[in-house]
Amino acid sequence: MAHWTLISDPADPEVDDFRDLSAADRRPDRPGGRGLVIAEGTVVVRRLLDSGYPVRALLGVERRVADLMPDMVDLDVPAFVTSAEVMAEIVGFHLNRGVLAVADRAPQPSAAELMSTARTLAVLEGIGDHENLGALFRNAAALGIDGVLLGGGCADPLYRRGVRVSMGHVLRVPFAELRPWPDGLGTLREAGFRVAALTPDATALPLSHFELASGRGAVLLGSEGPGLTAEAMDWADLRVRIPMAVGVDSLNVATAAAIAFHHLGVFPEPAEYRSR
Amino acid sequence: MAHWTLISDPADPEVDDFRDLSAADRRPDRPGGRGLVIAEGTVVVRRLLDSGYPVRALLGVERRVADLMPDMVDLDVPAFVTSAEVMAEIVGFHLNRGVLAVADRAPQPSAAELMSTARTLAVLEGIGDHENLGALFRNAAALGIDGVLLGGGCADPLYRRGVRVSMGHVLRVPFAELRPWPDGLGTLREAGFRVAALTPDATALPLSHFELASGRGAVLLGSEGPGLTAEAMDWADLRVRIPMAVGVDSLNVATAAAIAFHHLGVFPEPAEYRSR
Repeated sequence: MAHWTLISDPADPEVDDFRDLSAADRRPDRPGGRGLVIAEGTVVVRRLLDSGYPVRALLGVERRVADLMPDMVDLDVPAFVTSAEVMAEIVGFHLNRGVLAVADRAPQPSAAELMSTARTLAVLEGIGDHENLGALFRNAAALGIDGVLLGGGCADPLYRRGVRVSMGHVLRVPFAELRPWPDGLGTLREAGFRVAALTPDATALPLSHFELASGRGAVLLGSEGPGLTAEAMDWADLRVRIPMAVGVDSLNVATAAAIAFHHLGVFPEPAEYRSR
Repeated sequence: MAHWTLISDPADPEVDDFRDLSAADRRPDRPGGRGLVIAEGTVVVRRLLDSGYPVRALLGVERRVADLMPDMVDLDVPAFVTSAEVMAEIVGFHLNRGVLAVADRAPQPSAAELMSTARTLAVLEGIGDHENLGALFRNAAALGIDGVLLGGGCADPLYRRGVRVSMGHVLRVPFAELRPWPDGLGTLREAGFRVAALTPDATALPLSHFELASGRGAVLLGSEGPGLTAEAMDWADLRVRIPMAVGVDSLNVATAAAIAFHHLGVFPEPAEYRSR
C-alpha cells in the first residue's frame, strides 16, 4: 500500500525527483540527464503503475492521488500530496493534470529479442520530435504493432513529452535500438521480416498493393522533412507509398504510420466478416 | 503588386486587423468575433494567397514578406513590414513564424452543392477541438477527400489554430454545415452516398471489409470521447470500426479519419500496380 506524505515546503528534498522538470538536465536524452521516467495525469500514471517500470513515487493534489489509490494497493511507494501551488513550485511550471509519477527505467528487450518474438515491427529513422514519436507509439499500440526499433537520429521515447503524447503507450510497446545503423536492417531481413520503406516517391508501390499475407513485416519510417536516408532505403525489400493529392506536401509521420500499421492488418478477423 | 509600408508604431491603426489575436473577440466562432481568417507562416500564407479568400493585408518581418513577394505579383494588397518586437506588440504574443496574412471569408458551397459534385465526403459531429479539426482537414486534403460536412457541435474550421494545424488546407478543402442535424444525413443518402459511421464498437464491420467500389461514400466521424450520438448513427448505412488492441482507448480522431480516408481509396491506381 502506498503511504501518503503531506508536502508543504516546495524545497522539501523528499520530492527532488520531481524538481524543475523543464530544466535541460532532467531530460533523459541529454548529457547528464537523470534518466527518470515521468508520467503526467491519471490515465498515464495508471499505465505506468500497470507497467514493469519500478515506480519511485507519486506527487499530486489530494483528489488525483486518491483516484489512483485503488491502483496502488500492491505497491509500496510514497505518495506525496500537496496543493496545486506548491506542486507548480516544485516542478517549475503549472501542471493542469494534477498528478505525476516518477519511475526508474526498466530493462528493455534487445533488438534481437524483439525480432525473435514479434510478427510486426515499426523501424524508425530520424524521428527526433518527441510529440511525433509519442503519437507514433500510441498508434503502434492501438493498431497492434509488436515493437519499435529505433534507428539513427531518433529521440528518446521515454522523455516526458513523448510519454504524455503517447498516452503512456511508450511504457507498453517494447522498443530497442537497432545498431549498427542502417546495416542492422540486414539482421531484420535475416530474421524473416519483409521490410517495406514508406516514401512519398511516386514510383513506389501503393501501400494498398502491399500484401504481408501470413509472414512477418516491418515498416521503415523516416521523418517528415528529409525522409529516409538512401542508405536505410537500400536495405528495404520494397518501397511503398500512401497515394496523396497533388499539392499536398505530406502527412504527419505518425498519421502515415497509422495508415501503414492498419494496412498490416495484424488483427485476424473472424470468418463471419469475410462473407459480408 | 503588393505595396510595402513600414510600421514602427505598434498602435498604428493600419494594422488593426492583426491586433490582439488571442483576444476572445478575434475568434470568428465567438459572439462578436470579426470573422477574419488569419494565416501564420510562409507555407500557410502562401496557401491563403493561392486560395479564393480575399486577402486584406500581410504583416511580417522583412525577410518573410520578401519571401512571399513572388506570390503576390497579381495582388494589390498592403504588406506591412516591421520588426519581430513590434509585431509581437501588435498581435499580443511572440510569433516565431514571422509573417501573418489576414483575409475576409470566401463564400463556401452549400451542403447541397458539395453533395452534387463530391465523390467522397467526411461528415463530422462534435469535433470541437480546433487542432483535431485542423489535422482532419490536412488529412482530408492529402488523401483526396472532396469535402467536409459539419454536423452539430463542430468548431469553426477557419479559426486561426485550425488554419495553422491544417497547414492551410482548410482553405482548400470545401466545407459546409449540414442542417438540420442529424436529419440532413437523409439528404446525403438520397444524393447517393453510402454513409459509413466510424465507431469503436466491436460489433461493427472491420473497415477493411467495407468496399466503396465505384460509388460515392461518406465517412461519419464523432469526437474521441463521447463518439457519435445515437441519433446521427441511426442515419448511417453501416457501422465500421478500425480493429484495435485490447486496452487501448482509441486513436486520435484525425488519425482514425486518415485511416478511413485512405481506405476509401480515392486515387485509382494505374493498372501496372495491380499486377505486382
